[in-house]
Amino acid sequence: MRNISFRNVELKDGFWKNRWDINRNTTLECVYDRFRETGRIDAFRCDYDRETGEGTRAHYFWDSDVAKWIEAAAYCLEKGPSKDLEDRIDWLVDQIEEHADPDGYFNIYFLTVEPENRFTDRMKHELYCAGHLMEAAVAYKKATGKDKFLRLMEKYADYIYRRFVEEKSTGFLTPGHEEIELALVKMYEETGREKYLDLARFFINTRGTEDLKEYRHYTQSHVPVREFTEAGGHAVRAVYLYSAMADLARIDSDEGLKEACLRLYRSIMEEKMYVTGGIGSNSNGESFGYPFYLPNLNAYAETCAAIGLVFFLERMQEIDTNSRYADVIERIIYNGALSGVSLDGSTFFYANPLEIRPGDSDLHNMTYSLTQRPPLFECSCCPPNVARFFASIGDLAYSVNGNTVYVQQFMSSEADIDLPSGRVKITQKTDYPRSGRVTLESPVDVALAVRVPWWSRFYGDIKDRDGYMRLKLTANRPCTLDFGMEAGFVRCDPRVRDNVNKAALMRGPVVYCAEGTDNGGSLDCLLVDPSSRITVLDEELSLPMLQCSGARAVPDEGLYTGFVPRRTEEVKIKFIPYHALANRGETALKVWLDVE
Amino acid sequence: MRNISFRNVELKDGFWKNRWDINRNTTLECVYDRFRETGRIDAFRCDYDRETGEGTRAHYFWDSDVAKWIEAAAYCLEKGPSKDLEDRIDWLVDQIEEHADPDGYFNIYFLTVEPENRFTDRMKHELYCAGHLMEAAVAYKKATGKDKFLRLMEKYADYIYRRFVEEKSTGFLTPGHEEIELALVKMYEETGREKYLDLARFFINTRGTEDLKEYRHYTQSHVPVREFTEAGGHAVRAVYLYSAMADLARIDSDEGLKEACLRLYRSIMEEKMYVTGGIGSNSNGESFGYPFYLPNLNAYAETCAAIGLVFFLERMQEIDTNSRYADVIERIIYNGALSGVSLDGSTFFYANPLEIRPGDSDLHNMTYSLTQRPPLFECSCCPPNVARFFASIGDLAYSVNGNTVYVQQFMSSEADIDLPSGRVKITQKTDYPRSGRVTLESPVDVALAVRVPWWSRFYGDIKDRDGYMRLKLTANRPCTLDFGMEAGFVRCDPRVRDNVNKAALMRGPVVYCAEGTDNGGSLDCLLVDPSSRITVLDEELSLPMLQCSGARAVPDEGLYTGFVPRRTEEVKIKFIPYHALANRGETALKVWLDVE
Repeated sequence: MRNISFRNVELKDGFWKNRWDINRNTTLECVYDRFRETGRIDAFRCDYDRETGEGTRAHYFWDSDVAKWIEAAAYCLEKGPSKDLEDRIDWLVDQIEEHADPDGYFNIYFLTVEPENRFTDRMKHELYCAGHLMEAAVAYKKATGKDKFLRLMEKYADYIYRRFVEEKSTGFLTPGHEEIELALVKMYEETGREKYLDLARFFINTRGTEDLKEYRHYTQSHVPVREFTEAGGHAVRAVYLYSAMADLARIDSDEGLKEACLRLYRSIMEEKMYVTGGIGSNSNGESFGYPFYLPNLNAYAETCAAIGLVFFLERMQEIDTNSRYADVIERIIYNGALSGVSLDGSTFFYANPLEIRPGDSDLHNMTYSLTQRPPLFECSCCPPNVARFFASIGDLAYSVNGNTVYVQQFMSSEADIDLPSGRVKITQKTDYPRSGRVTLESPVDVALAVRVPWWSRFYGDIKDRDGYMRLKLTANRPCTLDFGMEAGFVRCDPRVRDNVNKAALMRGPVVYCAEGTDNGGSLDCLLVDPSSRITVLDEELSLPMLQCSGARAVPDEGLYTGFVPRRTEEVKIKFIPYHALANRGETALKVWLDVE
Repeated sequence: MRNISFRNVELKDGFWKNRWDINRNTTLECVYDRFRETGRIDAFRCDYDRETGEGTRAHYFWDSDVAKWIEAAAYCLEKGPSKDLEDRIDWLVDQIEEHADPDGYFNIYFLTVEPENRFTDRMKHELYCAGHLMEAAVAYKKATGKDKFLRLMEKYADYIYRRFVEEKSTGFLTPGHEEIELALVKMYEETGREKYLDLARFFINTRGTEDLKEYRHYTQSHVPVREFTEAGGHAVRAVYLYSAMADLARIDSDEGLKEACLRLYRSIMEEKMYVTGGIGSNSNGESFGYPFYLPNLNAYAETCAAIGLVFFLERMQEIDTNSRYADVIERIIYNGALSGVSLDGSTFFYANPLEIRPGDSDLHNMTYSLTQRPPLFECSCCPPNVARFFASIGDLAYSVNGNTVYVQQFMSSEADIDLPSGRVKITQKTDYPRSGRVTLESPVDVALAVRVPWWSRFYGDIKDRDGYMRLKLTANRPCTLDFGMEAGFVRCDPRVRDNVNKAALMRGPVVYCAEGTDNGGSLDCLLVDPSSRITVLDEELSLPMLQCSGARAVPDEGLYTGFVPRRTEEVKIKFIPYHALANRGETALKVWLDVE
């Protein structure tokens, strides 16, 4: 099975076209502006003079920030030309051409701040930055046909190959922050040069065999990757690595890698993922916590980690035909990834809390999640990741296996899909996830396998197979499916200590939350009745708001009393989509509410 | 009403005599040994040479550590002579005499490390150390009649009076860490010199009027003390201050101070106290959190704060005749104060968690409570506070008002109590809190007011009065009361977010907890049935263990499922007294358990 590129999928209207436009018009430009203001763009002049301190001093991860922006801009160029965007990218590429070392090496930090330390410090993101530049170069070549950037990156990759594989003349063998592995697969797939695949294989197979003193678990280097049993360490690093592992499992038909990927998938799904699809619960090391450690307040759940998990799952659905991967992708894109950006596209969450209590930030000596999205971070990986991710969201819609088109995600779109039997156009019309109705049409007969979402009442019938409903689309005969879009409460595994006797509300794939704004300011003492009827309101915030019956507990006489039944007042509790959290000023928030 | 000193109360057997002996034989000696090993004793030689770095460099709170040990040792001397103890104290007093400045000033840190900075840095504990030395001096004079130490401290207090009140030649006006205020009241009551009371009044009345840039709330200096409405800031500082405020309210019949004390009392009782009597929930600033902020995991609840709250409540029961103060004292001494020391008396908790999860310490960037008691801390205020507190626990047994003897706490003891009508001996026999039976006897007729504990079924009848049951003890006719000692679950105010849908088990005044040790290792998924019958087991840990019926939730298929009834297995849940926590190796602990 291969996924169909977003390049072949034209979003037409509805939820994702709207988000795409906001991403193009606001996010992409806001990220560029913030990067310009902070010197990240100027730093590509490589004019920092460490003797005098003049010029722009780069941080060692700035290359990657700007590279992700280039990648995002290139994706946007696929859907509409812009001389202005191309000019900005060309200027950056010219800087890279001008300042790259004759041997191909390029890194704004190590060229100017620590030139003597090239490839000596495993934890300083050189290969991570290189990987992002490579992804950007491939994207820009595909979008415009211009290949200068790609040629520069080929030369850089050749140099890395020589230093790491041939000469073994570096201070470390594998990147401290994974990313280049999956980028090298993209380089291979664009150029056809086996050398890049070899380099990716080298990094993946060498991982866990180095004699490291520090950051062994943090960087997924404690054992060789084929021995992984549990997702662990820094979550973004982890899922970038797992993505490349799944790539190689596909390309090399490597069963050992595939089995490791399946174990990691199960570890995340069964023990380590928030109901929002967020992962990496622990702010200490931005890492996966131990199994079932999923705190709500101070959930870390980095936006980049949610996005990276989609990268992994996209690749898993290519090597293991099962709708479960697209089910989780759906959970992430409507919840834990989308929550990373404000509804207007201009501000960003790095950590995505599942509970907010304004005023808690002076409690304990503790890292608290921000309660409002800022426009930028010191470590600003998430905003450009958001930009490139939503610019290429169409990647998630379709896959192909033989002559069967797999409908993975529901987005109003027109797709041109190449099958062994020839190109077909699939038109998808839907207001998903407002409703569960999806109409599919094609001018020629085509075999479809449509994902039946896990939350749909129709799911039960087909989950024993692979979760896809097979149907034949007859030429020019629109076929409408309706998965329903019912709201209901979900419960959490009792081993998640913070969610015992709590319930969360979902409607289809969309996780909802209660904010103080809609519930009298405070969420304290609110209790939901999970059996109560849930009403879809006319009011909207990104998607319709929901309401259910519940109660507010009336305080007792005294802090501690005998265990008599509590007194309550009936109340209505109003919910908004989780991804729309924190868009109306600072207020309390809960995804998991105590049950009556 | 005046409380009867422990000097007049001879513990005979039972719970408190046992704890007293452990405190005398183990705690007192362990604390001394640790202080000697760490240089705290030697530092009194004042031999630190800041040019060469030779000698013992003191920390600026070391005086107070050793002073509290002297005070504890003096209290022990009241109950049994010991030349060895007296020698050690006399040596320390000799050092103070030898090294005190001719003007009376004494502080091992400021005499040797920063002599030029005397009384310039409000946050460096000079007056706090002075206060503890004064309390120790009064205690030693009372125990032995030797008055050298007291005379030295009188001279020191005179010097402080001159600098702060007469000359106003200091860099600040009030202590950054309260303590000297209540010590000065003790100095006044021992010497009769009004000047010390004036100095206490000065510190209390000046507080909150200084122009401070920092630590205003932390040090209770944000408003004048008569305007306090909410307990706040560093919890130990706060309750030491409130204790002195209650002292002055009594001595001066100061209604403004009394009203402020009553507001602070209510603030703590209604919003800020753990079920164990612990206070100061927030490790950030070792402070009171906002109302109803009482987290279990990472409860700070410093041992010193619990002890300090007893000091405040002891004084409140002298100015407001109501058994509620002794009720709370009882809650503290059997739970949140006693938990501060191991059953063998040798190791100590600084923070007293209400939940322990071994392995959580690498989660988040967060201060976690220790899961096992160490023998010492860098900042080792709690161990000597434990030593002096339990050495004088008899202080809490009785009060007198007119010719009525108030029985506040139940301890097997013989007390000699001076009444206007003459001295009476009260013999109390009880195995409290094993049972609720208390037998009182006196060789002469005496009017008693016996506290009926809040948890007793007999309490309802008399709580509308002041909570004391009046009765006439007839000469040589033992009178036995039985308050019962039933176990039952309590519930928490629903505004305490961490305790919604949870229950805690108490038996009489004793809070119980579940440890992993007795419950199959893990407390995950355990659910209690608050209506289940509670069995008193034959097994003991300090007091009998309890058992109730409950369930263990069976994990679902998948992390998130529809809100169907959970599957459970019936289990027995075993409980130990909270104060006996963490005495059998590191294990999970919960006071508040999820309800079925």
